Order: sequence, then C-alpha cells, then structure tokens
Amino acid sequence: MTLDFVAVHPEWSVREALDYIREHGYDRETLNIVFVVDADGRLIDDIRVRRFLIAPLDSPVRALLDGNYTMLSPTDDREKALGLFKKFDRVALPVVDENRKLIGIVTVDDMLDVAEEEATEDIQKLGGSEALDEPYTTIALSRMVKKRASWLVVLFLGEMLTATAMGFFEGELEKAIVLSLFIPLVISSGGNAGSQAATLVIRALALGEFKLRDWWKIMRRELAAGTALGVILGTIGFLRIAVWSMFSKVYGEHWMLVASTVGLALVGIVLWGSLMGSMLPLVLKRLGFDPATSSAPFVATLVDVTGLIIYFSVAFVIMRGTLL
Amino acid sequence: MTLDFVAVHPEWSVREALDYIREHGYDRETLNIVFVVDADGRLIDDIRVRRFLIAPLDSPVRALLDGNYTMLSPTDDREKALGLFKKFDRVALPVVDENRKLIGIVTVDDMLDVAEEEATEDIQKLGGSEALDEPYTTIALSRMVKKRASWLVVLFLGEMLTATAMGFFEGELEKAIVLSLFIPLVISSGGNAGSQAATLVIRALALGEFKLRDWWKIMRRELAAGTALGVILGTIGFLRIAVWSMFSKVYGEHWMLVASTVGLALVGIVLWGSLMGSMLPLVLKRLGFDPATSSAPFVATLVDVTGLIIYFSVAFVIMRGTLL
Repeated sequence: MTLDFVAVHPEWSVREALDYIREHGYDRETLNIVFVVDADGRLIDDIRVRRFLIAPLDSPVRALLDGNYTMLSPTDDREKALGLFKKFDRVALPVVDENRKLIGIVTVDDMLDVAEEEATEDIQKLGGSEALDEPYTTIALSRMVKKRASWLVVLFLGEMLTATAMGFFEGELEKAIVLSLFIPLVISSGGNAGSQAATLVIRALALGEFKLRDWWKIMRRELAAGTALGVILGTIGFLRIAVWSMFSKVYGEHWMLVASTVGLALVGIVLWGSLMGSMLPLVLKRLGFDPATSSAPFVATLVDVTGLIIYFSVAFVIMRGTLL
Repeated sequence: MTLDFVAVHPEWSVREALDYIREHGYDRETLNIVFVVDADGRLIDDIRVRRFLIAPLDSPVRALLDGNYTMLSPTDDREKALGLFKKFDRVALPVVDENRKLIGIVTVDDMLDVAEEEATEDIQKLGGSEALDEPYTTIALSRMVKKRASWLVVLFLGEMLTATAMGFFEGELEKAIVLSLFIPLVISSGGNAGSQAATLVIRALALGEFKLRDWWKIMRRELAAGTALGVILGTIGFLRIAVWSMFSKVYGEHWMLVASTVGLALVGIVLWGSLMGSMLPLVLKRLGFDPATSSAPFVATLVDVTGLIIYFSVAFVIMRGTLL
C-alpha cells in the first residue's frame, strides 16, 4: 500500500481538479486513478483519470461520479486484493479505514508480483515441499533442507504403511513372487492418476472455477474420467503381460491370471486414485487448510498404500485356488 | 493487443496534447500512457499521462521525452510480454512493426490474466497432465480424458521398466522376500525427493532466477540438499526397522542387514532423485522443450526404475553371503 494518491473534492470543477493534480501530483504513485473524497476525507468514488481528461473543463467533478467503486480494508490479505483486481480490472484500488476514510491505495503493478508469488507458493506445495518464501538460488541451504525435509519425512512416515501393508501380504508374495514384479507399476499408476486429479482440482479451486458445494459434480467427473483412464491403462497392462507371455515363460503358466490381476487392479487403482486426488483437496479446504498442501506426492502416498490393498485383494479373488 | 491508443506529436504543447486527448480519448483503451510518434507514425517515446498532468501547459511535448521506452513486436509471444511488464513496471506497452511504426498497445490488465494462464499451464503440466487450456469444470469429458490419458500412458510405459527391472531381481526376491516389503517405501521416497527438486527448479527457471549455464551451481546445491535429505530419511528408515525388530520377528534374524540395506539405499535414492529432478528440467530446456513437461510424475517414474536398481545393488553388497 502507498499513501501517495491524489484525492479531489466533488464540488470542484474538472479544471480545478486538473490544476490541483498539476500542482500536487508530481510525487504521487499513480495518477491513473483519481479518488474523490468528502470534506472529512471519506471516499466517495474512484474515477479513472481518463474521465477527467475527456470531460469539459467547466463541468463539476460531481458530474463524473458513477458510484461504481470497490474498496479494500487494511486487514484484507493480498489474495483478496488480487481477486478484486482481477474481477474489476482496476489499475489501483483504494484502502479505507472503518469510517470509510481513504488511507491509501494499492496499485496493479504490485499485484503482478503478488499473483506470481501466490502461484509459486502453490506450485512448491504441489511439488511436495513447504513454500520456500525465498528464491531457490539464494535461500540458505539449511533453510531449504528444513523446508523440504519436513514434508519428505511426513510422506515417508505415511509411505511406511506400505511396508506394513506388504507385511500382511507376505504369505501371498511367497506363493506368487510374480505378483511382486508389478507392484511398482500398479501403485505408481494410481499415484500418477491421483497427482493429476489433485493438481487439476487444486488449480481450479485456486482460480475460483467452482465452490466446495459442487463436490458432487467434481466426483461424478472423476468417476467417469477415472474409469476411462483406468480401462486404458488396465488394457495396456493386460496386453503387455499377455504379449510378453507369448514369447517367454517369465510369468509362468498362469500368465493369464497374472495379466487379469494386473489389468483389473489397474482399473480399480486408477479410478480410486482419481477419486482420492480430486476429493482430498476439497476435504482439506472444508477443514480450513490450504488445499495446495494436499500436494500431489501426498495423494500419491495415500494411493500407494490403498493401491497395495486393492492389488492384493484382486489377486486373491482371481488367483484363489491356483497360485494363491 | 488493442488499436485504441492515444498518440501525440513532439512539436505540440502539453495544452494541445491534453486538448487532443479530451477530444479523441473517450473511446481509447487506456489514457494512462500517451505515445509520442513522428509525422510518419513511428514511435518516439511512451510517456505516462502523469507527466502531462503535472507539466506546465505551455511547455512542448518534446520537453517530456525521456527516450526511455520498451517495445513489443507483433511476433512476440505473451510470455515475453509478461516478462517486460514485470521488468519495467508499465501499465501499457507499445507494439511496433518492423519500421517502428506504432500499430497497437498491450495493457497490464490483460497481463494478470496471462500470468494466471501461464501459471495454470505450468501447474497442470507439473501435475502430470497436458495443459487443459480450458476450465476443469467446463472442458468436455472426452477432451479431458484424452489430455490426461496421453501423459498417464507415457508414464505407464516408462513405469513398465520397473517390472522389467524387478524381473532381473526375481532371484534375489525369492531368496529374501523381506526385501520386497520395502520396495514401495524406498522407490516412492526417491520419487518424492525428485518431484520436489524438479518443481523447485522448474519454478525458479520460469521466474528467471537462474540461467542454464548455472547448472553446476544447481547441481552442487542438490548434491548437498539431496545428501542431507537422504541421510534424514535413511536414518528414520533404519530406526523404523531396528525398533520394530526389537518387538517382533517380522524381519527375521538378519534384521540388521535389512535395516542397513534400506537405510543406505534411501541415502542413495533420495540423493539420486534430487539430482535427476533438478537436472532433467535443465536438460529439457536445453533441448528446446518446455521444462514444465518434465512434470514431477515423470521424474518420479524415472527415479522409480533407477531406484530399484540402486536398492537391489545395495542389498546385493550388504546381504551377499547371508540372505543373498
């Protein structure tokens, strides 16, 4: 915010206003917007200077008023200011105190920086890090490691559940070691689908494309998209194992069961990843957290754990009585 | 770009210029910047209207010129325009043809939208999707599935290499099934570290924080940060297995070897992930691609494959003669 604004009174003529600006405007931040205030300094209107430039010199300032203005309060955060700038296409917005007294202005060139910083924060959080709040190239190494380590450790602790889940299925693994070959493929596909959905939903939320109460609409979209994506990947996975098995014995005599397990598990896991990825940001927002912190890696980790359970459950159903 | 700009001539007086603006300015996009052109319409300077407002009415326009201006060409892309707006803090920039003839202007309020769209594109690519180019809530489902499927399939095909890599180590897995329990944990930690580094480097590149020739500086940072992060996660991983083994026999009599393998592999994989994540965007940019397309999931997939090799190599060295 800057205090260097130009304010004129409604009873002046345009000529008086322009003369006042000529005399007092030299050290003001912007003359693009002229603020009109009453005798007590309370904001009446903000007028683009163009209206002064094209108005007859003898007409009163009052004749230029359109009563169409937006104000900020000193307690508004920069995200709110950014939203108002985008909504109203202004080059400057007035800041008023609780008595509507004009106390300063914010100009749009500051907002480009704010928009950029907000995007940087979101991107860094999506990348599974705390926002650095400093340029990558100049932040002290120790501070950067601290900000990155905190999330990596959280993700690591979450991912430890995969070891626990794998422990439950150790018996199955011993019987059908071939199952282990596809574990990275299957769970990472769920993670990728989840990251994708989370990223799209988080950005759409940040841009105000929808409200929380539209969650059902989002869920329906992801049900459809996740099923389609799951069928695509599942088919490729099935074919990969089937085609390989025609030329080698690497997947054993029960390759058809292996291929079916991997293919079906992929459908379920990609769908599940898409649903988790899209709903988790909404849940976080509902709970009052920044949805960007349900960073893509966070979703991927959750989907890894649940993906294992889906994979082994599908395997159990399909391979029961043969391999398992 | 808009054609609705105001241009005046240097031999006019400020009064004449303001009179001209009063007469012709009503339908112009912005009066905040007044462009000064010669008799052939070639750009001489761009002057903030404030200088006209505070100048004596009788002084010539020529006296206001400072020769300090920036131009766009019709062939410049919007990213270049955005960069110039940020660098020079202008509310409008002139667009000139090859003869320096002023043919239009671009205003900053368009740039807020451009900055937002550019950030959205980068975020969506980082999330492992093609840029949607349309709002998430309104894009046709089929188009969205197509844009998401293309990258998911690419990642899936890449991730298939994990099954191939796992196949090579099937013998080791059969001997030490306990190794399989930690595969998701170990490779996803590498993927998370890689996503994080990729995201930070991609955003820093987009913000122009460093140039490609600084790659060695980035690599040194990531060597240090990756080692620190790897040691942190490796220590936690080691302790997790060690502590668990005090209360249960789930990891067998050779739990110390298992803990050492997981701990050491984590150091290597997290370091490797950080290096890959930071260098891949630079390589892509060097090759002329958009670095944001080395989306975090892409790095994670690459690190998954190489992570398996690191994991089993460490296991082979540590467990040789005992479990393997």
